Amino acid sequence: MIMSKEKIAVIGAGNLGQAMAGHFALKGHQVSIQNRSHSKIDDINSRGGILMKGVINGLAKMEVASYDFADVVPGRDMIMVTVPASSHADIARKIGKYLEPGQIVMLHPGHTFGAFEFHNTLLGMGIDTLITIGEIQTSLITCRLIGPAEVMASGIKTRLPISIFPANHGFDKAELLFKIYPTSVKAPNVLKTSLENLNAVVHPPVTLLNTGRIDSAVDFLYYWEGFTPSISHVVQALDAERLLLADALGVEVITLQGFFASAYPTKGEELWEKIRSNEAYRKITAPKSMKTRLILEDLPTGLVPYSSLGQEFGIPTPLCDAFIDVSNAMMMTDFRKEGRTLENLGLTGQGADGIRYFAETGKRIKRSADYAD
Amino acid sequence: MIMSKEKIAVIGAGNLGQAMAGHFALKGHQVSIQNRSHSKIDDINSRGGILMKGVINGLAKMEVASYDFADVVPGRDMIMVTVPASSHADIARKIGKYLEPGQIVMLHPGHTFGAFEFHNTLLGMGIDTLITIGEIQTSLITCRLIGPAEVMASGIKTRLPISIFPANHGFDKAELLFKIYPTSVKAPNVLKTSLENLNAVVHPPVTLLNTGRIDSAVDFLYYWEGFTPSISHVVQALDAERLLLADALGVEVITLQGFFASAYPTKGEELWEKIRSNEAYRKITAPKSMKTRLILEDLPTGLVPYSSLGQEFGIPTPLCDAFIDVSNAMMMTDFRKEGRTLENLGLTGQGADGIRYFAETGKRIKRSADYAD
Repeated sequence: MIMSKEKIAVIGAGNLGQAMAGHFALKGHQVSIQNRSHSKIDDINSRGGILMKGVINGLAKMEVASYDFADVVPGRDMIMVTVPASSHADIARKIGKYLEPGQIVMLHPGHTFGAFEFHNTLLGMGIDTLITIGEIQTSLITCRLIGPAEVMASGIKTRLPISIFPANHGFDKAELLFKIYPTSVKAPNVLKTSLENLNAVVHPPVTLLNTGRIDSAVDFLYYWEGFTPSISHVVQALDAERLLLADALGVEVITLQGFFASAYPTKGEELWEKIRSNEAYRKITAPKSMKTRLILEDLPTGLVPYSSLGQEFGIPTPLCDAFIDVSNAMMMTDFRKEGRTLENLGLTGQGADGIRYFAETGKRIKRSADYAD
Repeated sequence: MIMSKEKIAVIGAGNLGQAMAGHFALKGHQVSIQNRSHSKIDDINSRGGILMKGVINGLAKMEVASYDFADVVPGRDMIMVTVPASSHADIARKIGKYLEPGQIVMLHPGHTFGAFEFHNTLLGMGIDTLITIGEIQTSLITCRLIGPAEVMASGIKTRLPISIFPANHGFDKAELLFKIYPTSVKAPNVLKTSLENLNAVVHPPVTLLNTGRIDSAVDFLYYWEGFTPSISHVVQALDAERLLLADALGVEVITLQGFFASAYPTKGEELWEKIRSNEAYRKITAPKSMKTRLILEDLPTGLVPYSSLGQEFGIPTPLCDAFIDVSNAMMMTDFRKEGRTLENLGLTGQGADGIRYFAETGKRIKRSADYAD
């Protein structure tokens, strides 16, 4: 397959950032990569690229590896953001001034309402809406760093939804992804990827209901030991809340059960059996502290927006709220304040039609003082 | 000290029931004891009494040990109920027909609104209010069964509040307890003991936030390992909800911090330090299943009535609600329906004054169809 060379910037040089940058470069594209902390960038420059192992192989040379956004963003066709979703707004504020009309920012993953938040942050900076923003439902590559600038890619995920905001910008600027990941699915809009934020219904309950041993830094396998039948009931009930919200928004989404049944070879009927027979999860260990992305990322960019949707539509979300409230007390913070809500996205009172219209066009049916179009 | 002999029935022959029956008998009273399952009663009859060890010593002979309420309740001055609080209503239904005017039923412990529930259950059976009902805040004796009809009493607790319902019946019928446990405190009414249900603010969070290892039947020390700093924050915040409810009811209660500081020799400033330096807790192991009294008892007779009070007074109780909702999903039940609420106690809309008046007199300011006085 012949592909035209594209210029791609990758923001973040963690596991996923390096894997994506490496894969793009090995496919012949010109890649720049940025990271805030210097060590990862220094590692890449010392090695002269990123060494890919596993299902993707080779030393992938970077055009630029830098701590400075000014070095990596300008002139790129696509800017892929691989930092935790809780930092999306911060990244928007930092790269906003370097963005150029016609570029696409791809949030990988977007979690819930990532594109909305990114767009609104740019809007707040006076940057117009000619920037297209994409969301990928979860990570395209299963990978981890195994050394300095050295990535083990253990699998490429199939059938992942990718969405575009505003949807009426179309998929032109994301075609590259469908060439490299041909089974990926073109989602009708970002509501699909936002409401298929499955991390939000798995990570907070599994993490919080294992607080005792995580907070004691006890060794255990996060999924294979931590996902017990009692916890399974709670995760299922939380997923049911997500399905009601998606239904109210008129978005067709996969169930958590359905996702595990189709995405991995698993055994058993019950969710806990599927999770605890998933070989891809076998070796995943639990965090050693409650200050983990499994809470700090998945609450503000997952359960908080879900709860906010529930409030808008009059749909009770007792379990979303339970995990937010327990985490608020535990972390002595207010995740509702720092998280993504319809209120801070300027979308309260728009109804399902208004939110869909916004996803489609980037325009609000009702304008508020804060958010003109 | 010379005491007149009293006739006492003890309902329940678990750890606490046998300890109390043994202690009463060794103090010279005539004691009958009842238990639903036959083995404990058979043990007592085989041994010819209850063998007390530790801080209370001797073979305590029972007047009667029987499975049948008819053998143990009639003619007694005090009927002490030591079954889990979640069974109080069931016990009321079973012993109601044997109760005689002038008797006192002592709920040990009463948890939240135990006396109200017991009274209302009798009322529903057409039994008038000449029965006095007492609540003890928590167990008077720290004890456990170490063999058939053999109890180790490791300590007698001091300064425990005991209350009477209706308060205007006075303490006459409970004087026996103050003779045997002279540091016990006469609480102004059952609202004091009900709002000092501290189990409710400790057990559900500690248990649920350790679900992973409890549900996996992992060995660990419930308090010394399970009560981590992160969990401590949550328990503190839950206790703050209880204090606001007590304040709204006009009841002075001890804080959880204050309780641990005064009840046990402990170290440290933080709640988790106090708990994890409490020698009385050192050896307490965790349950091996989530089907434990720490949830099944403490939710319906603790967090559910607390949440109900919050609803009545417009005081948010997010953490009470969080633990109820998570437990509902986990156990696939509805603890709000089976638990004690102002609604099913016939006390909605009475306000703080009305609830206090009820505690004082057993009469409702506003009558409903279900609850005439």
